[in-house]
Amino acid sequence: MKALVYDGPEALGFREVPDAEAAPGQHLVKVMSVGICGSDMHAYLGHDARRPAPLILGHEAAGVIIGGPRAGERVTVNPLVSCGTCAACTAGTGNLCADRMIISLPPREGAFAQLVAMRDENLVTVPDHVSYDAACLAEPIACGWHAVRLAKRVVPDAAHALVIGGGAIGLGAALSLSAQGITDVTILEPNDLRRTALNGLCQQRAISPDDLPADALFDVVIDAVGFAATRATASAHARPGGVIAHIGLGEATGGLDVRRMTLQEITFIGTYTYTAQDFRDTAQAIFDSRLGPLNWTEARPLSDGAQAFVDIRSGKTAAPKIVLRPFD
Amino acid sequence: MKALVYDGPEALGFREVPDAEAAPGQHLVKVMSVGICGSDMHAYLGHDARRPAPLILGHEAAGVIIGGPRAGERVTVNPLVSCGTCAACTAGTGNLCADRMIISLPPREGAFAQLVAMRDENLVTVPDHVSYDAACLAEPIACGWHAVRLAKRVVPDAAHALVIGGGAIGLGAALSLSAQGITDVTILEPNDLRRTALNGLCQQRAISPDDLPADALFDVVIDAVGFAATRATASAHARPGGVIAHIGLGEATGGLDVRRMTLQEITFIGTYTYTAQDFRDTAQAIFDSRLGPLNWTEARPLSDGAQAFVDIRSGKTAAPKIVLRPFD
Repeated sequence: MKALVYDGPEALGFREVPDAEAAPGQHLVKVMSVGICGSDMHAYLGHDARRPAPLILGHEAAGVIIGGPRAGERVTVNPLVSCGTCAACTAGTGNLCADRMIISLPPREGAFAQLVAMRDENLVTVPDHVSYDAACLAEPIACGWHAVRLAKRVVPDAAHALVIGGGAIGLGAALSLSAQGITDVTILEPNDLRRTALNGLCQQRAISPDDLPADALFDVVIDAVGFAATRATASAHARPGGVIAHIGLGEATGGLDVRRMTLQEITFIGTYTYTAQDFRDTAQAIFDSRLGPLNWTEARPLSDGAQAFVDIRSGKTAAPKIVLRPFD
Repeated sequence: MKALVYDGPEALGFREVPDAEAAPGQHLVKVMSVGICGSDMHAYLGHDARRPAPLILGHEAAGVIIGGPRAGERVTVNPLVSCGTCAACTAGTGNLCADRMIISLPPREGAFAQLVAMRDENLVTVPDHVSYDAACLAEPIACGWHAVRLAKRVVPDAAHALVIGGGAIGLGAALSLSAQGITDVTILEPNDLRRTALNGLCQQRAISPDDLPADALFDVVIDAVGFAATRATASAHARPGGVIAHIGLGEATGGLDVRRMTLQEITFIGTYTYTAQDFRDTAQAIFDSRLGPLNWTEARPLSDGAQAFVDIRSGKTAAPKIVLRPFD
C-alpha cells in the first residue's frame, strides 16, 4: 500500500510500504479520507517522544471495510482502543483506561495510508448521504462534543460560551455547543486568515483576542489550545459558578488564576478525547446535519501530504481542517 | 460592650467599645462562643488589605438573641449576607452574589465582641442539647460540607478521599466527607502536634505528607490550604476522572499539573464558603451528632484573645480550633 511515512523532524515520505494486516477481531479499512490533527503536526516537528520515526501518523479516518462479514460497509474510525475490562472501561469511560491506545502511536500504525486495521466495535457505520470527508470529522469533533457534555454536567443551563482557539478542535467545540443547546458562542482566534474562514464559510462568530471586552463573562469557556496564556484568558472570563473545559495540551502548567477560581467557584475540567458513546453521538450528529454543512474542509491527495504539513505550519491555510485522500 | 479590636499588624486590644446596634430586620445577638479562623489570623498579620484597622474581626459565632420577637433563642450565625435578588442568589448560590458581605469585613463589624448584629434569616436556631462551642463550628465546617457536596456532583460514587491540611477547615471537610458517605478519609498534616490531636481526640487518620505513597490515588482530594505546593500534591494524587475541591486561598497561582489533569480528566472545583442551605444542613448535622462529638475545640476567654493569636501563630496549639468566650 501507499503511505505517508514520518521519517524524522519535518520529513515525510510518500511511498510503498507493506500492507496493513487485520488481526483476529479486526477489519481492514480502505482509507478514503483522513484528517491532519494538531498532534500529527506536533509529532512531525519532532516534539512527541512517544512517536519515534519511522511511523505512519494519522488517526482521523473514514473509509470502507474490505473483506469479512462487514465488507463494503462505509465507516468512520474511532481510533481509541481501550481494554474494555478495567473500572474506567466498565464505567463507560474508556478514554481513562490505563491501557488506552490510539492508532499512530506505537505499536499501532496510523491512517495516513491506503489501509488501516481496526477492531470491529470501533467502526461506526456511515450512511450513504454522508461524504468520507465529513465522516472523518467525527474524531476531532468528538473531542469538543465530549468537553461540552462534561461542562453541561456542571452548568446544565449554560447559555453563553467562549471557545479559545479556532482550529478544528475549537470549531468542533463551537459546533458541539450549538448542537447541545448553547447557541451563543464566541470563538477567539488570532490568525486573520482562519478568523475570516470561521466568520465566512464556517458561519461562526469569531473575534480577535484583542477585541474581547475585559469584563466579558461566559457560562462555559472551552480552551482548545492549552497554553498558560489561554488558560489566563479562560480563568478571567468564566463567570462566577461557571466552567472551563480544557482540551488543549500546549503547556503543562501555569496560567490559571486559582484565587479567582476559588473566590468565584469556577470549575476546571480536564478533558481527554471522548468516550465510545461520545464518538457515536458525534457521528450521529454529523449524519443528522446537526453540526452544520461541514463544508469547511480542504481536501488534498495523500501524495501531497508533506506539502500540507508545510502549509499548515506556515499559517497559510484558511481551512480549519485539511483532509488527505489516499486514492486521489 | 467589650470587644477584641484589631489595631494593626499583630496588635489586638480588649476594651470597651460602643454596643453593636441592630438595624431594621436585624437582631442583636449576645455572643457566647466565637471561633478564630485562618482569615482572622491573615488580617491580624496585616496581610488582608480588605480589613484595615481598627476593626473587630471574627465571624464564627453562636449566642443568644436579645430583644425582639425571637428573644432568648439560642442561635448560630451564618455570617455571609447576600443581596437575595440577583441571579446567583435566586439560584440558591448566595455565596456567588456580587454584593456578598461577611461580618468582620467593613462596613460590618465582626463577632469578637459581646454583641453582634445580624439579620433574621441568617440566624439558625440551636437546640438546647448543643453547646455554643459546638454550634459556632457550623460556619467553618460548612465550608467543607459545601466542598464535599460539589465534589460529589462530579464523582457521585466516591469512596476514597484525601484532605490536605488538618486545621479546622480540613478537619471539617474530613467530618463532612464521612457524614456524606465517603468514609475512607486520609488527612495530610505536617505539624506533629496537630497530627497527634487529629489521630487522637479527633478520631481521624492523619499522616505526614512525607508518608503519602507516591502512587496513592483518591477519588476526591480536598485542598484546605491552597498553596502551589499543596495543589501540586492534589493534582498528583487525584485518580483519573477524580476531583479536586479547592477551599484554600494561600497563593493565587501555580502548582496544578494541568497536563496530567487534562490527560486524566481531573476536575478542579473552586469552592468559596457555602450556600445558606449548606449552612443549615451543616448545623443540622451538628445537632444530629453526624459530625462526631466536636469535643476538639479549646475554649479561652475573649479577654485572652490576643494570646490565642500568638499561640496559634507559633504553632503551639494542638486544638484544630480555639473558641473565644466573651462572657467567661
